[in-house]
Amino acid sequence: MPVRLDAGSPGFNEAFRTLLQAKRESAEDVDQAVQAIIADVVAKGDLALAAYSKAFDRVDLESVGLRVATWEIDRALELCAQEALDALRFARDRIVAFHERQRPKDERFTDSLGIDLGWRWLPIDSVGLYVPGGTASYPSSVLMNAAPAKVAGVKRVVMVVPAPDGKINPLVFAAARLAGVDEIYRIGGAQAIAALAYGTQTISPVAKIVGPGNAYVAAAKRRVFGTVGIDMIAGPSEVLILADASAEPEWIAADLLAQAEHDAAAQSILITDSAALADAVEAAVARQLLTLPRKAIAAASWSEFGAVIVVPELKDSLALANQLAPEHLEIMAANAESLSEGIQNAGAIFIGAHTPEAIGDYVGGSNHVLPTARSARFSSGLSVLDFMKRTTILKCSAAGLARLGPAAVTLGRAEGLDAHARSVSLRLGDQAS
Amino acid sequence: MPVRLDAGSPGFNEAFRTLLQAKRESAEDVDQAVQAIIADVVAKGDLALAAYSKAFDRVDLESVGLRVATWEIDRALELCAQEALDALRFARDRIVAFHERQRPKDERFTDSLGIDLGWRWLPIDSVGLYVPGGTASYPSSVLMNAAPAKVAGVKRVVMVVPAPDGKINPLVFAAARLAGVDEIYRIGGAQAIAALAYGTQTISPVAKIVGPGNAYVAAAKRRVFGTVGIDMIAGPSEVLILADASAEPEWIAADLLAQAEHDAAAQSILITDSAALADAVEAAVARQLLTLPRKAIAAASWSEFGAVIVVPELKDSLALANQLAPEHLEIMAANAESLSEGIQNAGAIFIGAHTPEAIGDYVGGSNHVLPTARSARFSSGLSVLDFMKRTTILKCSAAGLARLGPAAVTLGRAEGLDAHARSVSLRLGDQAS
Repeated sequence: MPVRLDAGSPGFNEAFRTLLQAKRESAEDVDQAVQAIIADVVAKGDLALAAYSKAFDRVDLESVGLRVATWEIDRALELCAQEALDALRFARDRIVAFHERQRPKDERFTDSLGIDLGWRWLPIDSVGLYVPGGTASYPSSVLMNAAPAKVAGVKRVVMVVPAPDGKINPLVFAAARLAGVDEIYRIGGAQAIAALAYGTQTISPVAKIVGPGNAYVAAAKRRVFGTVGIDMIAGPSEVLILADASAEPEWIAADLLAQAEHDAAAQSILITDSAALADAVEAAVARQLLTLPRKAIAAASWSEFGAVIVVPELKDSLALANQLAPEHLEIMAANAESLSEGIQNAGAIFIGAHTPEAIGDYVGGSNHVLPTARSARFSSGLSVLDFMKRTTILKCSAAGLARLGPAAVTLGRAEGLDAHARSVSLRLGDQAS
Repeated sequence: MPVRLDAGSPGFNEAFRTLLQAKRESAEDVDQAVQAIIADVVAKGDLALAAYSKAFDRVDLESVGLRVATWEIDRALELCAQEALDALRFARDRIVAFHERQRPKDERFTDSLGIDLGWRWLPIDSVGLYVPGGTASYPSSVLMNAAPAKVAGVKRVVMVVPAPDGKINPLVFAAARLAGVDEIYRIGGAQAIAALAYGTQTISPVAKIVGPGNAYVAAAKRRVFGTVGIDMIAGPSEVLILADASAEPEWIAADLLAQAEHDAAAQSILITDSAALADAVEAAVARQLLTLPRKAIAAASWSEFGAVIVVPELKDSLALANQLAPEHLEIMAANAESLSEGIQNAGAIFIGAHTPEAIGDYVGGSNHVLPTARSARFSSGLSVLDFMKRTTILKCSAAGLARLGPAAVTLGRAEGLDAHARSVSLRLGDQAS
């Protein structure tokens, strides 16, 4: 059973703190193994990739090829149901349209002292996208990672995806094609991250790596960070639902379970001002679980990490929500919009009864790669900005330098950096310095 | 002597690759020590901080206090030269004015299917700023880190700075006051990072930590990443200068040395189409070095990591510059502005002979915290965005959901996530699913 808390009860603060601090992931210590794998790929390149694919995925890369051929993608598309392809295309178009609004603007201006200032946004030249194999190989995630990169103008988007027993989900190939992925390699694990970061005979290195993966992939991303950029390290998914008595218990239960079915370490929390609603939701969850294909996973998540919190008034939930800083926040209440304005920390907010979080996973258009494990306190979901970088521009005339220079000389000397001061004073004609 | 390369010579590509791959930092392995320090601060809080300050900084925190008092800052300001305070205030005003242009805009729109979408930018609630002690305790860096945080709207900016032998640079206190820092604690090292991330009896934890530090600080930032956000891990500073025959060798030499004086691991590179200019600059560097207070550091950097590259035409330097992806790029050439348009990778560009990089360090207004070690290929300098985060918003009406829902149901089922599909189909009234 999930934990049930009452904000009015004496032990609440302590119990809520326990909930906040609950570790849902035991960080498997794979760092030593990952270090060896990376060194091996750096030393042996394609040969190391072939050996790991044989050992871990039972795939002979020397016969099927490291790079996925165009005809393989063509053939995979023929295997996909037309309905699924249409849905992917619909999702792709909506994701592209939303992310096009995120393209940042360059700036260039002359300020009151006549100094010419600004900045210029440019796409990262090449990006690697890690896609997990097996059951966590989600075509929707391919769209969510690759489409914003292409909107940003990234020239070369390289996808890696392991092929356990030679198999890759055809919809993953379809999503890659739709999103404009430029190269696909059938490799996974830490060895794929190493290949993207350092390159091999066949694979040119990229400048940044994004996408979720298991403990090996996460450890490898941490290790190559600096050589390349990385996105966030994704943790188990989570949803927080704020609901008043007007909400529909069956819908809430379905949304809690949609989160729980991802992973036994996922977390689903309901905060409500109605004890009756809380009871009805708990009963609905128990009922709906019975007919769910991923029942075992969802039940484990709900009983281990699920929580139902009853508060005196729904506005009291805002302070709790801001501490939880959930990846996904649904608000189903009469005043959902105004409640949402009190939210400081959340990856994404889903407002109103007709906005289940699953819409955001697939076809809302906004990105489903969002900060987990309370990191919405300090970070944002994936966006076009993650695939661009900014160069600042400064340009002084002789007259402009004459206005700025003396203060720079003063500060350079105050910091004991005389060569800094001299580089300015020389130009000011102060030969004495 | 710095390396001298000629782009026309046969061994150039190999020699340039060596230059690109040169490691300028030996990553000291302090991770074990840092792990123990963090655990100690988590377990013992203020007591651990007091013990480390006594051991490392010879400071008795129990007598002088962990938090720096207002009267101490008042008194420090009295010790500062008026000229330096005026220069700091001038710098502060310019930094604030520049960064105010970086405030991102919220977005909210209804798309063609009637779906209400958008995002909201909000400041991070609390931020910690690490300031090194001793000679690397730069007041300009306090402004560059704290002012953008305050422009972003961060409510609580907490500064930590070690006080070796009880001493802190009074200008650092002045800069903190001018930038609006809210709390200052006289601690440093990995223990200060741990205190900011996890909190102690006296220090409330923050949500993100920024600022440069030594190997211990860098290792501690990597370790607490996830619990809190961190900025980039800063490496040694670097400048690349592109110059044609019209440029003034003495000015170039001064700028190369301004970079070199930071650190023996700093790097200064000149690329020019004029062998005569290259000779003149090398001679000027040798001459200017003689009268430089930080001569030993600058000479070590220049001889170990300095480079002068001669190219047939200056436009040939662009491809090299984009591979080097320098933190600072100066262009002193007749067509400096148009050359700058060919730059894809650089932290900041300084255009024209009257824009020495030191202006950007102090009073240009743009940020001097910039990506080092080729990371300008995938990352940007510090900005207001680093102190904010974005929450996406999605809101469907029943009619809107009817338009989006079927594709979401299709994709949920295709991914084997039936609870996802059900959370949508229940609302569509499809009781069969």
